[in-house]
Formats: sequence, structure tokens, C-alpha cells
Amino acid sequence: MGTVVALAGQVGGAKLADGLYRLRGKDLVAVVNTGDDYEHLGLLFSPDLDTMLYTLAGIASASAGWDPEGETRAAHAMLRKLGGPERPAFGDRALAAPLLRTQGLAAERRLTEITLEFCRNLGISARILPMSDDPVRTNIISDKGVMTFHEYFHDLGCEPAVRGFQYAGCEDARVSDELLAVLHAPDLEAIVICPANPYHAIRPILAVGGMYELLRKRGVPVVAVSPIVGAKALQGSAGKMMREMGREPSARAVAGEYLRLIQGFVIDHADAAFADGVRSLGLEVLAAPTVMRTVEDRVALARRVLEFAAAIREKKLAEA
Amino acid sequence: MGTVVALAGQVGGAKLADGLYRLRGKDLVAVVNTGDDYEHLGLLFSPDLDTMLYTLAGIASASAGWDPEGETRAAHAMLRKLGGPERPAFGDRALAAPLLRTQGLAAERRLTEITLEFCRNLGISARILPMSDDPVRTNIISDKGVMTFHEYFHDLGCEPAVRGFQYAGCEDARVSDELLAVLHAPDLEAIVICPANPYHAIRPILAVGGMYELLRKRGVPVVAVSPIVGAKALQGSAGKMMREMGREPSARAVAGEYLRLIQGFVIDHADAAFADGVRSLGLEVLAAPTVMRTVEDRVALARRVLEFAAAIREKKLAEA
Repeated sequence: MGTVVALAGQVGGAKLADGLYRLRGKDLVAVVNTGDDYEHLGLLFSPDLDTMLYTLAGIASASAGWDPEGETRAAHAMLRKLGGPERPAFGDRALAAPLLRTQGLAAERRLTEITLEFCRNLGISARILPMSDDPVRTNIISDKGVMTFHEYFHDLGCEPAVRGFQYAGCEDARVSDELLAVLHAPDLEAIVICPANPYHAIRPILAVGGMYELLRKRGVPVVAVSPIVGAKALQGSAGKMMREMGREPSARAVAGEYLRLIQGFVIDHADAAFADGVRSLGLEVLAAPTVMRTVEDRVALARRVLEFAAAIREKKLAEA
Repeated sequence: MGTVVALAGQVGGAKLADGLYRLRGKDLVAVVNTGDDYEHLGLLFSPDLDTMLYTLAGIASASAGWDPEGETRAAHAMLRKLGGPERPAFGDRALAAPLLRTQGLAAERRLTEITLEFCRNLGISARILPMSDDPVRTNIISDKGVMTFHEYFHDLGCEPAVRGFQYAGCEDARVSDELLAVLHAPDLEAIVICPANPYHAIRPILAVGGMYELLRKRGVPVVAVSPIVGAKALQGSAGKMMREMGREPSARAVAGEYLRLIQGFVIDHADAAFADGVRSLGLEVLAAPTVMRTVEDRVALARRVLEFAAAIREKKLAEA
């Protein structure tokens, strides 16, 4: 068995990555969105990186996966007393990673090195890699103007109607040497796009300079899992965004977002009726339970996804 | 009644300042040592400033006055898991002030402005002023070499034998405009040196460029309260340091440290037998209960100290 690369962001992405991790251990490489990162109080907050760290370390809150289990808010409450900003709120435990990350970056260490050290210290044998060491910031083009995702999410509560996205800095951002080595390694087995908002969790990863072409031409199966079940986004605001941009909020529409990159698409078994619609895009389709309520759900979905990728690979070899 | 200026550091200094605050409210100006400040995780920790803030706001821990009441250590525990340094440990609530302070300084605000804003937000009507907006760092000259107070205290647990002190940056540090205005105001009534380590809590304040001469020539009573009762320091390591520097750890020796600055010295009533020894230095002496276990003790000592200063003033006027 070779290396599995998972492109991920948000809680849903971390959950499937956790399923893959429990099956493959050190052979999983999770490539994580940093387009939603933001500076607050002089600290660099990387919500998707930290969600992935807590999830793979088994210390994520069951009800709020972006926070460590048992999170408290004492520092934020004191900050408010001293006149500090109400938003974004932050937890006590969740402050630790931004503190160390910011200090590490100030000491000229790369985000990748810092993140890999967090993995080692948390006992995570998989590699969690930021999508780039260079900053990329997802901007929302909305009816209220252009704003960072951070402003859209934390300050405006996802209110503005979304018209489009910009990934500021993406052209200058490079794929790190660590990630290049993984993607070029002969043992690379599959690339999995985890269920997460295509616009502000997955697209920023693909927008990093050279990433898209690298993945597309690598010659290993690329499969994506839909974050939409029925017409609803499982996590976050994907459905709302799709409607505002005039697209039907459906698994098929998500598949369309990844069209020239993927060979296989996983839809929820409740959406099996839509499988033909996705197939009409020229994709292999797997209908499977994609709602991950338990750790067993994560592992079961991960297993189905890997089998699906293996089948695509074999089919391709048979055709060649 | 006029303005009372209290020079202070450490928990003992904050306690007497609190007694003065409860008597005089907005007419108290606490001038606080910043020589023990240190950078950790990229944040500026000001232990004496924060101790004073928590104490006057009535939210200091009864058992550990440098921490807010009910302090927890969740952020530090997570930091350790991620591979961060064990020492110095920090509390969750105690992180808030360094976070806002560091951010304010990065935005080119002065430490004095930031501290006064903390006062307003905590509902403190008195003014807490750092001894200077410019950095001064107390260095310990020890048998193990020269080190910052921070290293001596946090890293080496006060182990090295002390030979002397340096106040790095003191010549270039200026008295802030806010403090100059207070010291030059015609209503200035008394200057109180609170009970605290003379070497690393009070001397750094006096070492700020121009401060010593300004206080000495101001013409209002300057009275100091001994931090030593019997041969023991009430707080911290004053007694140990005095012995290591070949001085007897006594109230008289502390009085000697402030000799050309003060007119009156307050010793503990248990040390009344030593009053003549202090008087032989040419000082007025008051013996009073200086151990502040309760808030009432703080107020009672503050009242005695202010009466003592008033008596010195009247005596001076009668002599003139």
C-alpha cells in the first residue's frame, strides 16, 4: 500500500482524513487549506490546520471539532474586561497553537516545519502539511463588497450574498518541498478531496501555484467526496454560497467544480438517484454513507473511498 | 486632600497601593516597576503592572496576587502538548493583558496609554502608570554570571547568589509626560514607597532617567514602608539577596537603601525595638502593623502611612 494524499479543510474534511489515518497511519498526508487563516491579536490563527491537528490527535471536541475537547474561554472573558474585541472569540486551549506558530514564524521557521513538529508532539504519525508556506487569503466577492473570509465569517456572520472568490497570493504561493516530495514519490496511491466547502476549503489548495497541474497530471486516481447531501451542505455554508452564485446546491454541482481534476466522485447513498447525473459528467460514481457521526463512520467511508480509488486505478490499467 | 503617589512592585506593593486606593480613589497614582518585564512567546509580560491592575480591580487571587482570581492553566497545558516550553507557566486569564499590551505596542501606542485604558476598562479610578514607556530590564549580577531577573526567577528558581544589580536601559528611559504632570502638580501631597524588594521592585523605578532627582527635590514628604519584618522579607527574596550581598537583612538596611530620598520610614510594630537604629540614620520612624492579611489591614496601614507623611510635612512647615 502506498501513500494517500487527502486535500482537506473544515471539520468534514478532518473527519474523513481521520478515517484515512486510522486505516493508513503514517502513510496518510493531509494537505490542509490555509486560505481561511487570519491574524488576531498579533497571532496567526489557522482554523483548518488546527482542526486537523486536534482531530487526528483524538482531542477534538465532539460537538465543535475546531476546538479541543473541554475547551474553556477564560482568556477571552478577561480580554473583554480589559477592553479587547468581542470577536472573534477564542478558547484557552485553542490559543496555544497560534502562540507557538506565530513565535515560530517570527523565528523564520516555515509553517510546514512548525506543523510537522506539532504532529510529532501530539503523537500523530501522519503528516499534516499546510497547502503552502506562503500566505494565501481567500476573499469573498459579495454584494457588500470584497472582504476576507475571516470578515465574512466572524464579523458578518456569513450574511452577505456571495458572488465569487479570490485567492489572494495564490500565484506567488509555492508548493512546499515536503509536499512536492510526497506528490512525486513513486508510491503515491491516491488523492482524495475530502468533503468540505469547494470554494473556501478546497479551491484555495488547488489555486497554489502549480498545484492543480501537478495533481491533474500525476497519473494517480483523484476522487472527491461530496460535502452536499440532498440540497444541503453538511458543514458550513456551501449550499448558501452555491445558491447565491446561481448554481443548484447539489452533489452534481460540486462534482462540476472539480471536473477536469477528478476521475471519481462519491455521493451520499441518499442521493443515489442523482448518480446518473454525475456520471453524465464523465465521472465514475460511488454512492456511500457520507454522513460521519461516529469514528466508525469515518473509517467506513475512508475504506469505501480507497476501494473506489483502487477500482479506478485498475480500470485505467486495464484500459491502457 | 491632594494626590498621593505610590511607588510599587510585587504583591506587597500592590496591597498597600490598594489600601491607599480605598482611601483616596482617583487621587492615587501608582507608579509601577517594569524592570521585571519579560518577553515570552512573543508577548510582553509585565508581572508588576498586572498584579497592580488585578489588585486595584479587586480581581486578584487571594493566595497568588499576581494572578486573577480563579485562574486556570488550560492554554499552558495545551502549549506543553504541542512542544512549547514548560517555563514560565502562565494562566489563561493572565494571558489577556500581555496579548492586548503587545498588540497595542505593535500599533505604536505607549505602555502608559495602554495601562490607563486597562484601568478605565476595569473600573479603576486611580491611575496606574508604568515607571517609564521605555524598556528598563533588571539584571542580576550573580555567582553564576549576569542574567535577567526573569532568568534568575523563572529559570533558576532564585538559586544563584546575588552580588548586585544592573538596570539596563535606565539612563535612556524617560519619565512619561503623564507622570511628569503628576509629580509637578501643585496638589501633590506625598510620595509613598510601598513594601517591596528594594533591588528589583523599587530601585528600577528610581533609576529611570531623572526620576530620583525629581522625587528628591520635589519638596513633598517621601516615606517608605519596610518589606522586611524581623529578619524576614514579607514577599519574595529581599532577605536572601541582602544576606548574599553582605548586608544584614533588616528594616534598617532597607531604610539605608533609600537614605537620601526619604524623610520617614515605617517599620513593623514587631520591630519597634529597632526604631532607634533607623532614627540614627536621621529619619522619622513610624512603627505600625505592616503585615497585610486582609483588606482592612491594607486600609489601616495606608491610613497610618498618610498620617505619618502629613505629620512630617507639618513638622517641616513648622521648622521652616
